[in-house]
Amino acid sequence: MPVSSKHFINDPTQLVSFALKSVKYANPSTSIDEPNKIVYRKDASPDNVALVSGGGAGHEPSFAGFVGDGILRAAVSGTIFASPSVKQIYNCISQRVGENSGVLLIVMNYTGDVLHFGLATEKARAQGLDIEMVVVGEDVGVGREKSGKVGRRGMAGTVFVHKICGALAATGASLKECAGIARLVSKNLVTLGSSLSHVHIPGTAEMDECVELDEDELELGMGIHNERGCRRMKIPKIDCLVSTMLKQLLAGDDKDRAYLGPVTMGQEFVLMVNNLGGVSPLELGGVTAHVVESLEEEYQIKPKRVYSGTYMTSLNGHGFSITLLRLADTGLGCGKDMLSLLDAAHETLGWSSCVCSSTWSRPPSAPAPLIECDPTPTSSLRMDIPVFITTLKNGLKKIIEAEPELTRFDCLVGDGDCGTGLKRGAEAVIGFMKAGAVTEDPVSTVSRIAGVVEESMDGTSGALTSIYLNALVQALRNGSEATKVTGVDASVWAKAGMAALSDLGRYTPAQPGDRTMMDALYPFLAEFEKTGDVVRAAKEARAGADKTKGMKPKLGRTVYIEQVGDIPDPGAVGIAVLVEGLAGI
Amino acid sequence: MPVSSKHFINDPTQLVSFALKSVKYANPSTSIDEPNKIVYRKDASPDNVALVSGGGAGHEPSFAGFVGDGILRAAVSGTIFASPSVKQIYNCISQRVGENSGVLLIVMNYTGDVLHFGLATEKARAQGLDIEMVVVGEDVGVGREKSGKVGRRGMAGTVFVHKICGALAATGASLKECAGIARLVSKNLVTLGSSLSHVHIPGTAEMDECVELDEDELELGMGIHNERGCRRMKIPKIDCLVSTMLKQLLAGDDKDRAYLGPVTMGQEFVLMVNNLGGVSPLELGGVTAHVVESLEEEYQIKPKRVYSGTYMTSLNGHGFSITLLRLADTGLGCGKDMLSLLDAAHETLGWSSCVCSSTWSRPPSAPAPLIECDPTPTSSLRMDIPVFITTLKNGLKKIIEAEPELTRFDCLVGDGDCGTGLKRGAEAVIGFMKAGAVTEDPVSTVSRIAGVVEESMDGTSGALTSIYLNALVQALRNGSEATKVTGVDASVWAKAGMAALSDLGRYTPAQPGDRTMMDALYPFLAEFEKTGDVVRAAKEARAGADKTKGMKPKLGRTVYIEQVGDIPDPGAVGIAVLVEGLAGI
Repeated sequence: MPVSSKHFINDPTQLVSFALKSVKYANPSTSIDEPNKIVYRKDASPDNVALVSGGGAGHEPSFAGFVGDGILRAAVSGTIFASPSVKQIYNCISQRVGENSGVLLIVMNYTGDVLHFGLATEKARAQGLDIEMVVVGEDVGVGREKSGKVGRRGMAGTVFVHKICGALAATGASLKECAGIARLVSKNLVTLGSSLSHVHIPGTAEMDECVELDEDELELGMGIHNERGCRRMKIPKIDCLVSTMLKQLLAGDDKDRAYLGPVTMGQEFVLMVNNLGGVSPLELGGVTAHVVESLEEEYQIKPKRVYSGTYMTSLNGHGFSITLLRLADTGLGCGKDMLSLLDAAHETLGWSSCVCSSTWSRPPSAPAPLIECDPTPTSSLRMDIPVFITTLKNGLKKIIEAEPELTRFDCLVGDGDCGTGLKRGAEAVIGFMKAGAVTEDPVSTVSRIAGVVEESMDGTSGALTSIYLNALVQALRNGSEATKVTGVDASVWAKAGMAALSDLGRYTPAQPGDRTMMDALYPFLAEFEKTGDVVRAAKEARAGADKTKGMKPKLGRTVYIEQVGDIPDPGAVGIAVLVEGLAGI
Repeated sequence: MPVSSKHFINDPTQLVSFALKSVKYANPSTSIDEPNKIVYRKDASPDNVALVSGGGAGHEPSFAGFVGDGILRAAVSGTIFASPSVKQIYNCISQRVGENSGVLLIVMNYTGDVLHFGLATEKARAQGLDIEMVVVGEDVGVGREKSGKVGRRGMAGTVFVHKICGALAATGASLKECAGIARLVSKNLVTLGSSLSHVHIPGTAEMDECVELDEDELELGMGIHNERGCRRMKIPKIDCLVSTMLKQLLAGDDKDRAYLGPVTMGQEFVLMVNNLGGVSPLELGGVTAHVVESLEEEYQIKPKRVYSGTYMTSLNGHGFSITLLRLADTGLGCGKDMLSLLDAAHETLGWSSCVCSSTWSRPPSAPAPLIECDPTPTSSLRMDIPVFITTLKNGLKKIIEAEPELTRFDCLVGDGDCGTGLKRGAEAVIGFMKAGAVTEDPVSTVSRIAGVVEESMDGTSGALTSIYLNALVQALRNGSEATKVTGVDASVWAKAGMAALSDLGRYTPAQPGDRTMMDALYPFLAEFEKTGDVVRAAKEARAGADKTKGMKPKLGRTVYIEQVGDIPDPGAVGIAVLVEGLAGI
């Protein structure tokens, strides 16, 4: 399966430089040193420890997206997937951060990053700066034996170190406390990724097909720079994949891993499901729910926080990673536990959870009970039941009879279902009336008929008919409340019918002349309201339907037959047939 | 260019259902009605107008991700790219939202959504509920002529309606006010998308190659359900693409569009650059900065807010959309202008800007001035300049002489650059000394030599050497401050050298026995510190280097030659050669 190597911006230098500038535009508390690719806070307090991080580009929002009040003071970017130089990092520390209550560098465990940030640290320390560096590595994709002394790679869990440490620094904590908690968080982190393909780096040649995964393969433990993981496998069902990943993250009996030691009852965890960049948010959500449910079913772990989003990417990598942070006592007292620091306010683009501590700590409530619905609406209006049934049945029977003709018209100019749809609706309403369900109250009767129509008719015409009938219910009730009239005569129906037509206009732009059922319905109602004469009104409806012959359709994005010839609009004819039946002609 | 149709979850029903559950897990203020695919707030105040939205799935975080305090009360989801049914929507309104100070439905302008939400609205209104529906359509991908009476499609700009209206509802505003502002925002919105490929819907057949875009093509105005846009073109340079898109969004003289009328001086805008799902955050940032800069250069528009992120997707669509909202007077007074409502607090997963109003309104400051660096560090230590120069030059010359041998070793067991790297460093330091740059103060001298090494030597060994020398500076200074000694003898060098070695351990896990330069450096410093005898120490270094013959490398993830035979580690030999030179043997 080839990898998409299409991009909007192919020049990697321009790409990184503009991406960094976007942080300044979207977060005006930050500024940028373009030549050194440093994003830094403009007006930070020198009284707090300054957190600095960085690494190769291509992992956005890491790291520049975490610059802002409450997280990072500054971030230094390299080119795509390559560490920034010592000079850039040193310039960041010395020129953009400067004297503070200490500087803490948080660096992911990659050789280039560790050496370059390390050298910059030593240079700054040689200058007399109070500076510490903490290296984060939490990937369990590669076990102890294979990773050897080099240790684990840094992955999305690093963002937890940034957030927790950044919030602690904002409280005025010392450099020692900040570095201590960074190490504590790091020690309690495990992350594992899973990818469906390698990612293409803008500005490089297309990827070698032969290293790419097969169409039905995924790679477990792939790194955030396309590094090899621990194994390739046929893509399993999502629940199996999640189980496999959780085992690798948590199993205490895996001697090559078990980085957290045995997981015991009472240990508390925080979960992050991180999008490597190219997974749809829909799918990431699906994965997240599977992870949450597997954690509970298989490990009895209910994470205290669940973060699902895009925190550290591998460009638009088609994969995700699962991070678990085991909560440990910071020993720093109230408000400085890991959860409070995760929840603390911040002003950055990258950390995307806005859920309050109090919401998280609210005891899980039972599912909210259903709100009781109103029963069928009623009114004080009263109508003659036999007249209503006879009149309506006449109209509906005409529709049923007209079905073959309507179908023929619709097959020529539409999608062919207009006749059968109307017939289905008509039959259902006749069935409703036969069941003795009509009451004297037209409001409740029409309301229930609207439900029958909704259930029996499909598509646009079904929805529009139901909308119209519901609007008619509302109009009848409003009319009776306004006029205190209780007897229902032609004028009550006519006025309500016209008011409902105006309501219908909210949901369809159709007007007479557009070649829709409106071409018959509007003249019918207009005449009926004006004269109260249903026979004359029905004749207007028929005349309107006839006028649709040769009329061009004006609605809809679908392609219509340009030459509709002599065929009238089947919806308009359906209305004409119905009202002729109502009028007894 | 074929589209990736690989997914972690292929069953669309399971996918949507689990994705909706993930909202509940990540935002515990929400709950879910699984059969009806409704995500709703658990403990919302019935005193406020309830905002409800929804539509097909596949647009996450729209819409369920916007459920929470300050934005939506509930969201109803259909299947992927298909409207929810009337029944689902009606159940949402009647059972999950219920009586409030009114219900406002915000719906995107797609036929199915408008009809289904419309019918549910009319049913609820017929039940006596105070309910309004506002339809949002702001796509300028299709012009007036082509979209006709159906109007513009809804796109990411809809999220601005959600946010602004949601914040207004939270202030206790009336339904009329909320619906009014929803219409006002909608009227002032324009959005245009641009995509590199169509998106594959999980659970469907692979896409037809012949409808897919060519390798060098993009489609302007593609909709969020793969709908056709206004044109296909060769992928232009990003600045041309952005210019073209802005023209289509803003041009007042385009009679088929000009939805905002003429853009005049003094009009203020808010910008959203939205990821359709599959663009890397790096690239989205790059696009955003181009849009911001083009807006200013071509239209003198400096957006009052810039949002760059994932607000409304088309699964993992490889495209983005640009939305401009023209700020209009809400007429609602202080704190209820559009910007304040955009900035207002909320508790949702989908709205990802945390930048405060006060940060946005701070006047743009000049770029922060560079922080003054400390000059080269100094100490009260004093050394004999000629002795220092002679001794060091002896060592460095030996390295230069040994270059061919070191290169030969490294070509056999490494990447071949060890000898030349060391030689380059040695020559640079000799040049530094020849220039008369050595002073009596070893702290400032070694500090400047560290800089020379950093500039001249590449790669891991250069970085480690510089780190070591910077650590040596710091150790010399610390030692002199602690002991008040000012004269520099062998013991001062030895102690500082050993302390710096311990610092180096922070950045490399290398220990004697790992086949690195440490195999010579450690025994040298240990012996020198113990006896002060540089000749004996140099012999230990040579012995250590010899021991690396046949030793297996323990570090690094790259593949090493298993059989290193009789070849010693070139780094260790380099150290041995250097210290033999220092010792004069």
